Amino acid sequence: SWFYTDAAAARALLQPRTRFSHKGNFGRALLIAGSYGKIGAAVLSAHACLRAGAGLTSALIPQCGYKIMQTALPEVMVMTAGSNKKIVSDFPPLGAYDAIGVGPGLGKDFKTAKALGGLIEKMISPMVIDADAINLTAENQAWLAKLPRQSIFTPHPKEFERLVGPVANDYERLARAKEFAQRYQCVIVLKGAYTAVVLWNGEVHFNTTGNPGMAKGGSGDALTGILTALLAQEYDSATAAKLGVYLHGAAGDLAAQHNGMIAMTATDLIEQLGHAFEQLNHA
Amino acid sequence: SWFYTDAAAARALLQPRTRFSHKGNFGRALLIAGSYGKIGAAVLSAHACLRAGAGLTSALIPQCGYKIMQTALPEVMVMTAGSNKKIVSDFPPLGAYDAIGVGPGLGKDFKTAKALGGLIEKMISPMVIDADAINLTAENQAWLAKLPRQSIFTPHPKEFERLVGPVANDYERLARAKEFAQRYQCVIVLKGAYTAVVLWNGEVHFNTTGNPGMAKGGSGDALTGILTALLAQEYDSATAAKLGVYLHGAAGDLAAQHNGMIAMTATDLIEQLGHAFEQLNHA
Amino acid sequence: SWFYTDAAAARALLQPRTRFSHKGNFGRALLIAGSYGKIGAAVLSAHACLRAGAGLTSALIPQCGYKIMQTALPEVMVMTAGSNKKIVSDFPPLGAYDAIGVGPGLGKDFKTAKALGGLIEKMISPMVIDADAINLTAENQAWLAKLPRQSIFTPHPKEFERLVGPVANDYERLARAKEFAQRYQCVIVLKGAYTAVVLWNGEVHFNTTGNPGMAKGGSGDALTGILTALLAQEYDSATAAKLGVYLHGAAGDLAAQHNGMIAMTATDLIEQLGHAFEQLNHA
Amino acid sequence: SWFYTDAAAARALLQPRTRFSHKGNFGRALLIAGSYGKIGAAVLSAHACLRAGAGLTSALIPQCGYKIMQTALPEVMVMTAGSNKKIVSDFPPLGAYDAIGVGPGLGKDFKTAKALGGLIEKMISPMVIDADAINLTAENQAWLAKLPRQSIFTPHPKEFERLVGPVANDYERLARAKEFAQRYQCVIVLKGAYTAVVLWNGEVHFNTTGNPGMAKGGSGDALTGILTALLAQEYDSATAAKLGVYLHGAAGDLAAQHNGMIAMTATDLIEQLGHAFEQLNHA
Repeated sequence: SWFYTDAAAARALLQPRTRFSHKGNFGRALLIAGSYGKIGAAVLSAHACLRAGAGLTSALIPQCGYKIMQTALPEVMVMTAGSNKKIVSDFPPLGAYDAIGVGPGLGKDFKTAKALGGLIEKMISPMVIDADAINLTAENQAWLAKLPRQSIFTPHPKEFERLVGPVANDYERLARAKEFAQRYQCVIVLKGAYTAVVLWNGEVHFNTTGNPGMAKGGSGDALTGILTALLAQEYDSATAAKLGVYLHGAAGDLAAQHNGMIAMTATDLIEQLGHAFEQLNHA
Repeated sequence: SWFYTDAAAARALLQPRTRFSHKGNFGRALLIAGSYGKIGAAVLSAHACLRAGAGLTSALIPQCGYKIMQTALPEVMVMTAGSNKKIVSDFPPLGAYDAIGVGPGLGKDFKTAKALGGLIEKMISPMVIDADAINLTAENQAWLAKLPRQSIFTPHPKEFERLVGPVANDYERLARAKEFAQRYQCVIVLKGAYTAVVLWNGEVHFNTTGNPGMAKGGSGDALTGILTALLAQEYDSATAAKLGVYLHGAAGDLAAQHNGMIAMTATDLIEQLGHAFEQLNHA
Repeated sequence: SWFYTDAAAARALLQPRTRFSHKGNFGRALLIAGSYGKIGAAVLSAHACLRAGAGLTSALIPQCGYKIMQTALPEVMVMTAGSNKKIVSDFPPLGAYDAIGVGPGLGKDFKTAKALGGLIEKMISPMVIDADAINLTAENQAWLAKLPRQSIFTPHPKEFERLVGPVANDYERLARAKEFAQRYQCVIVLKGAYTAVVLWNGEVHFNTTGNPGMAKGGSGDALTGILTALLAQEYDSATAAKLGVYLHGAAGDLAAQHNGMIAMTATDLIEQLGHAFEQLNHA
Repeated sequence: SWFYTDAAAARALLQPRTRFSHKGNFGRALLIAGSYGKIGAAVLSAHACLRAGAGLTSALIPQCGYKIMQTALPEVMVMTAGSNKKIVSDFPPLGAYDAIGVGPGLGKDFKTAKALGGLIEKMISPMVIDADAINLTAENQAWLAKLPRQSIFTPHPKEFERLVGPVANDYERLARAKEFAQRYQCVIVLKGAYTAVVLWNGEVHFNTTGNPGMAKGGSGDALTGILTALLAQEYDSATAAKLGVYLHGAAGDLAAQHNGMIAMTATDLIEQLGHAFEQLNHA
């Protein structure tokens, strides 16, 4: 039950496109992200969602991010909700979206927590849960039972420990992730030098792309956007996780080729997503 | 009365440029677009209008879009009007413009509807009517008789049904579009996998450019900007529709060559408009 | 007294650079520009000023343009003044600047007029006077006697007629420009298909660069920025006008090569200024 | 004790990267910068900090810069503090940062001065002190004794004279810099045509990269960002100063190759930092 996602494996996961695609086919994605001073995390995840092929990308962000998001990404529709301008709260009905990603730069305000708890109860289709949404889940473990099956968690090592408690080493981390994925029927993307996608059926897929230049702020936000876009395009969670992690790393490798590992940014990575998809298509 | 707009047909439609062009020649275009959270639609249509060659591009947008538009597109002049900051209403006198495009991201507030109704009564030269301006027209069918002759509607299938009622299949859709175009002496651009330009004289021109990667948010906004720019440059409505739809698709094909169908965005398409024009000029 | 500014003539005007240049050498330029809805004109002129080599570029703009300018051009320092947020008024002391360009998108509010009149009385070194600053001068002809000698006016044909009254044809326009330049000891840049630089000594220099694709909004704003930057770098007014008009056209020609005459924008032109300078240096 | 930092010397200073880098390794950098009208200085320094490889870049800026910074650089986290919207004051606890750079566009308000004085007392690890932070230090010489050892000052000639008093010539400037560096156990980067890095041990390292096109607004802000990023990546101060000054000049040389010395901007330089690093790695 150990696998590697290399180019051949990733290519096999990719959907073909037909001429008669329309916006519905590419799907409607929503990112719930951002808080005062961390609106960039929302921008990066929405940007990655666009570049990973979502048909319509929307963002639910705090009011303090309104002009920022609309200026940065004209393709993204913006909703703001809640009386506090600095955080997201009071989610509107979100039934129109094919996929929801939540967490980048979100903050942990109790109003945000309350709204997220409410969303988790109502959601049926799988979500992508990242960053502060992981941290809030860790603090509200009762949510785990209510979470849509096959949701995807994307913790870095510290976030993972918040979720499951202290972990002694890499080996134990993987074991605990398998346990967690099985118990809650979810996908755990354990981010690290060799990111592991841990499935609810016990499979572990090690990614083969990526480089140290990705160990920078915004890299995880980009991954959340990619995974949400893939879910919106009707990839199942396991495929979305394996393919998304592969593409994220491949785009990072292309960014490193262009600007070097030291200088490359999350935006550079996002701008290479198109070429990462094309490499798979044409190789 | 069935035609195809291929490269040769499109090239024949293109105006030559002379050295003594001045701003007046390229024309004055106005986009009326945007509402809270959908200012990006206004930005995309104005951006496409610039890149499709309008001499002066102005935008009438809600106040909540002021800084966004001025930051994104320094070449565009901005007007805001109305007491509600989130929508466009209370149109100022618009006689100075050679062409007006209305609809992208506009919303359907009753104040917007009232202002649009007033505009339609006053306008003499053809307009481009897209998105929510189509939806509002569908709800105010009395406007149709007052609409400037040879205006261009750009509905996607659902918008078209709002305008004419339920349609059983592609064949009926075309028949109804011909009927509608003839009755109201307008042009219908039926957007889809093979976009059809339906003229008031019964001609149907199928477009030969474009790809599934264009089935994403913002693509239609770009088309509205292109058509408005062509009207401003004194193309007649039929020519503007055929040529504009062709260029939109050709730019989309160039964008797909650069970034792939999955990753390409409406902004990518817009940035390729220059090369799409050049391909026609030089081929 | 008729000349052509071709590549050889322009090259002869260009200053050499020495290693020991410092910010002082490149000079301090100020643009006074913009009003509500026309902040883009201020952005374009400041952008062109940067790209034409000013050491420090500042902008005096209305408060409604503050975030727009600072977001668009981090290299530009911004001042806002006056109680009305939509216009520029109440100029602060401006003695620290080596060159001032005024007019793009400025509007004609009487408070702006009053402030401009005050500036003209105090200024000693030549200014660049464009757009609404020309229109305001036309309405306040008493300013002309007080204007710093060797200032540069950059009227398009209509603005020129506002300044000197109706003109029957191109021949009369040139004659009147020579008269005006001599009387007020200034430079007139008569913008048109073949822009003419008319000097106070009776010389007329016809420019040989440029193309119809430049006949679009923002093109004149860019020229103002270029001329201001050249004055700041201690070019005399006659040289700045001849060289600046040449470079503006050459950059426009490069922009047309890249994006075509139809699609090219003022920003495209500005982004080619570096290559226009390099062409002169290396040809 | 006179050295030259050429490509070979700079290459020897560069750290290798290992696969197991994570955000912690690249370090957490903070820029304290900006004031009303000079937010661009904060943007440029944060941009350079990103491109010089900091793992996480944060900016403490005045409230009037919030949207500007978040729009320009989504990778940067923003903090605003203080009741005056136009300046930075009332620094929050800053213990979480591996390196702090302070000064670009900061202004000299007494509240900013007070906050900076407080920061200097508390800081243990070396800081980068630039622009108005140098000017404020010059006016508060008591800070010098409390400054973290091995901090880096980056004065241009006038700022240096404010710090140490009038200087007759280049020779005296260097002598005084050596004295100052030794007394306060700091690094002085004397900016000029041949920038000199003066260490506390008496060594002087002359830089061999750079060109007159860098003598423009924003160039120094970029250097501050680079130095802060290198400190965050655990370069010691002497190495950071020598390597950072070298890379700054090398990126400027690449920018000049692309856009020419006249047209190149600080942003152009920053965008070449990746290639400057790569040149060292691969040469």
